[in-house]
Amino acid sequence: MVTKQLSGDAGAADDADLTRADSLAREIFSDVANKWALLIIETIGDGTLRFTELRNGIEGISHKMLTQNLRMLERNGLLERTVHPTVPPRVEYTLTEAGQGLRATVDGMCDWTQRFLGHIEGARRRFDAPVNG
Amino acid sequence: MVTKQLSGDAGAADDADLTRADSLAREIFSDVANKWALLIIETIGDGTLRFTELRNGIEGISHKMLTQNLRMLERNGLLERTVHPTVPPRVEYTLTEAGQGLRATVDGMCDWTQRFLGHIEGARRRFDAPVNG
Repeated sequence: MVTKQLSGDAGAADDADLTRADSLAREIFSDVANKWALLIIETIGDGTLRFTELRNGIEGISHKMLTQNLRMLERNGLLERTVHPTVPPRVEYTLTEAGQGLRATVDGMCDWTQRFLGHIEGARRRFDAPVNG
Repeated sequence: MVTKQLSGDAGAADDADLTRADSLAREIFSDVANKWALLIIETIGDGTLRFTELRNGIEGISHKMLTQNLRMLERNGLLERTVHPTVPPRVEYTLTEAGQGLRATVDGMCDWTQRFLGHIEGARRRFDAPVNG
């Protein structure tokens, strides 16, 4: 639900207003609503994964994109990074409660993608076809 | 749910595998999992909106981003573009059934953003603080 503030009421209420370019909600949404962040959350799931496991689990993600998004997700409190004092140190990632909350909605998006695969494929074919094909 | 194909089974099954860089599911996910597309879907909701109404409803979206994303969403069969033969022609957008399906998950993501606003704000503050602050 997108909330729209009608009054000139500043502060906390505006923070939650996704329609505003400068709200905290929009800032968070801009961070997490990107394919790599969502695929990372989905891939960690209930598990505890290392960088290389994530890298191998998400075909096509670059080292840079994975690093940037892990840092962004940690900064937003969606995942926890644990460094085990081994030699070399072992670094693992798990979802926090907030991360699990987002995961539930990403699950829904993945299910949706798979449910409407055929519909979308057909729509694309029609859209891309020459007008008098 | 991310499905991972274990066998060498090509074709339809692979299409639904989000972990693969070249699957149809990943292609669709890459298209729709971006903040502008999701905000457009959320803003149209149950309504029928014109370009300018969308532009005004989503603060900060540029003309170019709105045009590109509307075209992409139409191509994927998530919204329907109707041109009314008035002078000048009136162009309106509504969600299709597939679009409404995605909207349900975007609703969840918006709710999540608002629910965890305080948690995320605190996590950011701690992350950004100087180590010995």
